[in-house]
Amino acid sequence: MRTTTRTTATRTTAAGASDPRETPRGPAPRTSIATVSLSGSLSEKLGAAAAAGFDGVEIFENDLIASPLSPEEVRTRAADLGLTIDLYQPFRDAEAVPEEILRRNLRRAERKFALMERLGADLLLVCSSVSPDAVDDDALAAEHLHRLASLASEHGIRLAYEALAWGRHVHTYDHAWRIVEAADHPALGVCLDSFHILSRGSDPRGIEEIPGEKIFFLQLADAPRIAMDVLQWSRHFRCFPGQGDFDLAGLVGHAVRAGYTGPLSLEVFNDVFRQGDAARTAVDALRSLLVLEESAGLSTPPPPVVPTGFAFAELVASDTEPLRSLLRTLGFARTGRHATKPVDLWEQGEARILLSGAGSGRRDGARLAALGLETPDQDAAVRRAEALLAPVVPRRRAERDAPLDAVAAPDGTELFFCGTGTGGTADGKDRADRADGAAVGAAGWRDDFPARQGTTAPGTAGPGATDPGTDRAGEATGLTRIDHVALPQPWHQFDEASLFHRSVLGLEPDESLDLADPFGLVRSRAVAGPDGSVRIALNVAPGPGERAARPQHIALATDDIVATARRLRERGAGLLRVPDNYYDDLEAHYTWAPGRVATLRAYGILYDRDADGEFHHFYTTTVGRVFFEIVQRTGGYRGYGARNAPVRLAAQHAAERG
Amino acid sequence: MRTTTRTTATRTTAAGASDPRETPRGPAPRTSIATVSLSGSLSEKLGAAAAAGFDGVEIFENDLIASPLSPEEVRTRAADLGLTIDLYQPFRDAEAVPEEILRRNLRRAERKFALMERLGADLLLVCSSVSPDAVDDDALAAEHLHRLASLASEHGIRLAYEALAWGRHVHTYDHAWRIVEAADHPALGVCLDSFHILSRGSDPRGIEEIPGEKIFFLQLADAPRIAMDVLQWSRHFRCFPGQGDFDLAGLVGHAVRAGYTGPLSLEVFNDVFRQGDAARTAVDALRSLLVLEESAGLSTPPPPVVPTGFAFAELVASDTEPLRSLLRTLGFARTGRHATKPVDLWEQGEARILLSGAGSGRRDGARLAALGLETPDQDAAVRRAEALLAPVVPRRRAERDAPLDAVAAPDGTELFFCGTGTGGTADGKDRADRADGAAVGAAGWRDDFPARQGTTAPGTAGPGATDPGTDRAGEATGLTRIDHVALPQPWHQFDEASLFHRSVLGLEPDESLDLADPFGLVRSRAVAGPDGSVRIALNVAPGPGERAARPQHIALATDDIVATARRLRERGAGLLRVPDNYYDDLEAHYTWAPGRVATLRAYGILYDRDADGEFHHFYTTTVGRVFFEIVQRTGGYRGYGARNAPVRLAAQHAAERG
Repeated sequence: MRTTTRTTATRTTAAGASDPRETPRGPAPRTSIATVSLSGSLSEKLGAAAAAGFDGVEIFENDLIASPLSPEEVRTRAADLGLTIDLYQPFRDAEAVPEEILRRNLRRAERKFALMERLGADLLLVCSSVSPDAVDDDALAAEHLHRLASLASEHGIRLAYEALAWGRHVHTYDHAWRIVEAADHPALGVCLDSFHILSRGSDPRGIEEIPGEKIFFLQLADAPRIAMDVLQWSRHFRCFPGQGDFDLAGLVGHAVRAGYTGPLSLEVFNDVFRQGDAARTAVDALRSLLVLEESAGLSTPPPPVVPTGFAFAELVASDTEPLRSLLRTLGFARTGRHATKPVDLWEQGEARILLSGAGSGRRDGARLAALGLETPDQDAAVRRAEALLAPVVPRRRAERDAPLDAVAAPDGTELFFCGTGTGGTADGKDRADRADGAAVGAAGWRDDFPARQGTTAPGTAGPGATDPGTDRAGEATGLTRIDHVALPQPWHQFDEASLFHRSVLGLEPDESLDLADPFGLVRSRAVAGPDGSVRIALNVAPGPGERAARPQHIALATDDIVATARRLRERGAGLLRVPDNYYDDLEAHYTWAPGRVATLRAYGILYDRDADGEFHHFYTTTVGRVFFEIVQRTGGYRGYGARNAPVRLAAQHAAERG
Repeated sequence: MRTTTRTTATRTTAAGASDPRETPRGPAPRTSIATVSLSGSLSEKLGAAAAAGFDGVEIFENDLIASPLSPEEVRTRAADLGLTIDLYQPFRDAEAVPEEILRRNLRRAERKFALMERLGADLLLVCSSVSPDAVDDDALAAEHLHRLASLASEHGIRLAYEALAWGRHVHTYDHAWRIVEAADHPALGVCLDSFHILSRGSDPRGIEEIPGEKIFFLQLADAPRIAMDVLQWSRHFRCFPGQGDFDLAGLVGHAVRAGYTGPLSLEVFNDVFRQGDAARTAVDALRSLLVLEESAGLSTPPPPVVPTGFAFAELVASDTEPLRSLLRTLGFARTGRHATKPVDLWEQGEARILLSGAGSGRRDGARLAALGLETPDQDAAVRRAEALLAPVVPRRRAERDAPLDAVAAPDGTELFFCGTGTGGTADGKDRADRADGAAVGAAGWRDDFPARQGTTAPGTAGPGATDPGTDRAGEATGLTRIDHVALPQPWHQFDEASLFHRSVLGLEPDESLDLADPFGLVRSRAVAGPDGSVRIALNVAPGPGERAARPQHIALATDDIVATARRLRERGAGLLRVPDNYYDDLEAHYTWAPGRVATLRAYGILYDRDADGEFHHFYTTTVGRVFFEIVQRTGGYRGYGARNAPVRLAAQHAAERG
């Protein structure tokens, strides 16, 4: 599987690549992940970390305690998987306590050191004390840590002292470092944890004051900015780098400039992905580190190739008739059929829909299975995708078919990198030079869809064929292109999907929005290219369970929403009914030109505006899991009509209940 | 359905009942609920509120906008359901703005007033402005609200001005009242919302300074104490009264003493129950108000009858053999069979298990279906349960069976109120006097289980019968009674279940705990009687979905855990294996008498302690959805071994994966 190995290309710094940061260059750091970041048993966690391609792990004590494997067996298992055990954690409430308690703590530590020797781990995380027994006395803390470190060094073990954000007396990294400095023992250093540092608003620049060799370990976690109790925030809302709001590239840069050469290790847990599958979480995790290394200037994977438009959207259904009927009503014409597969091409303007009758008879009926993305350099796009662990989709391609590479997005949607019609690629080679002699450029994949007449006789085309006359008679309704697609995401994979589209495709995420649905808030986040030519709205249902299979939709652009709406009504299109109350409210909400709201009401058109422009839109009824939206953007409107989503969702809910 | 009507008894104040608070007495307040508190369409929300027994609703504007029903149709629908429309909400960003914006706002308001006339609503909620256009000028705000109120009164409409906790300039209730007082218009009063008041830590005693007739509306929401951004807190974490940490009885008392006579209205929404079923949410909601009224001294429903012990736990399985085998190994003896049903009684000491072969062949196999609760006054317990909307379970009872009343807990577990053996009830009547002449007291339900010999010949007892000799040979293993039961709760119903057990049974909830499971944190909260004789642990899985059907368990007490463990091992009981690593850690964690940990390790016994005592426990393997725990409490230990839950959960996870 492509996702399970890392190419060397992503791990070494390409000489001569420009780098805006003055960060020491060398081999990219080793990667590590705390077992607490993954779900399942310790054995399953190790397997998932290794399969994703991590170099090492932190062993979380509770995972070992609950494991039927002995420490020796864990050591062997990790070694067999090619994983180093970079850290054992945590040791709590050690320092700055009355002598009697300290002696007890040293006894406790001695047992842990013995265990670590069995485990083959030589670095122990020591958290700043949260115990009510601890006193606020740096000299005493330093003395105690010195004694602990002396004991540790007898076992060949080193200690990494970490300031917990909620530590009783020590809760900032610079304070922890002052104590470590005062303790002055070679087996004692600090552990820096980005969450503990950034959640308290500490200035990470001070990291550069710490000698690199005294930074024994670096734990990374991102988090959304939420003003809440820091312990709860830490426990429930950590996320992988790039999925929250922290500047982790900056922090890593400080550590590297300080001289830190240890692994970048992820210590991340939250309510959502603790429940997820460990194998895919591990891949998501490693991808986040690769992107972080790139942002911090520590590695130079192939740069992203930002798509410049939608080449097509592919719908799959076991019975294609309802979708064909809908496409005809929308004014699409069937212009071709794939030479070797039961797939039809439907077109109107620059909007292209592939309709595949090869559905596997899945219960959810029609669904959006793939997107074609206009990609200036397909080969470079594939290299980027592979470097960032995107699973490449194996193609069953006939010899004469155009070469089309695709990767699978986290929700399973296949993303095809399609030519733009220039025939050239970024590296100067013409794809026509390729040994397979396949067709190239924008026309490349379309050449696989010869015009229907001549290729398919009426009634012989298998599931999906109807009278070609009907299909070609489609009178255009003013639809020009695909404006955006909206893809509901599985609950566990929302942050993963957002990071995937950002890092693999180079699309920029918008803010996250909460939309009111009759059954809870739907979280929505769009990713878009810089010019808005590709927009994908990622939505997540309020929770897992039976309501997770929300409809997908394709939004088609028009330059005259009223004309398009009128034509679709004349053609008898099934459109989602908008309640009258909506227009009463709309009328009260804004100031209008006379008759304008009456027009919108007559055609069931919804309305939104932002600082830059206006948005008009309406929806078809749903077929299987899929519906269409018709949209008109004017001015520089950048949104998706979020204001109207509750009305749409309620109307769909009503339609569902009959 | 018993849950859909409210008895008059709960709505009027019983004369002569003692009341510690000096709250004016009169008819209990009317109850209302905001449509935003319930899931589904507006029509579904109205139906659910009426079915639960609410007197009225607040109509949330977005629910109306998204509804295909016209305002007139909503008005008729509500009237047909017997619901008043107590409030229309919200009107935003009205006051303290430049004149031009104010004029626009007045136009907007005029349209809303017209709509409210169609709807038949005469009270509009006006929220303090969050607009950047608003200025910090109380006199201007008062003037603008006066103008708005004048306009409203022309339509027979009144305005309730509410300080949002995140209002731009007005965010405390006393500030809102000062402005309303200054505006001095009969159609203008305040709306008090407990969340906005208590989330900011305002002192609610000031409510008594407001003339009662100027408190136009009272909205109630509880919330857990979380230090977080107040808007997010409000949006995601509100809960029904009694399910959070706010003192709502105190707040309501202040409002009533101020002279407020309007409805108590629930405006509550959170991430969890927006997804739930509206009908059951509405019942949960109304129950919370009834309990609140009782706490505030506004009504006197029949007092709770706290159970004094477990009479039995009933297990149901389509194939009972695995459970019978387990019970035999645990040393239970089959002592009786129900006279008319395929249910056996198994006993050891005071621990009694009913085993029913009448399983409906549910996929989840063996499950805990019912609990018998030793109840000093069964009739009074039923009256309490009915007053608090607990669904009474219809019994299929043969003529000679003992009368047993049961209610269904939110998770479907049936709770039977059983006699304690006194034969008398609190009202002085002996149940033996009852017309049906049924058996009474503790022995009552047991009389339905005549000793097996003489009632059931071997092999004729239907599913569940085996050689009675085997069943009776059970040598006791030292188990004395049921210590507690643990019931996993459906995700949406955790707070509901906690409130149900507290209010219907009079059990006291413990603190809520997070337990680490290999697939996320399990939230756990126990409810217990004052003497610990009845303890029920409610657990909730990290989310809905396939992992929601967690096992239930019955914890059985012993006075000598080592002796019991030894005997069970000798008998070949299937016990959950505890990892060796657990004992290594245990040894390091505490100071031990020599050999003690070796004994615990040899018998696979887990250990915990708290300030008051010690806890030893171990687990059987799981049959269907059920397993047993054997526990020994010493000293005054009050917990459930939460420290060891991750080890148990991981071991169960490992056992599941084989």
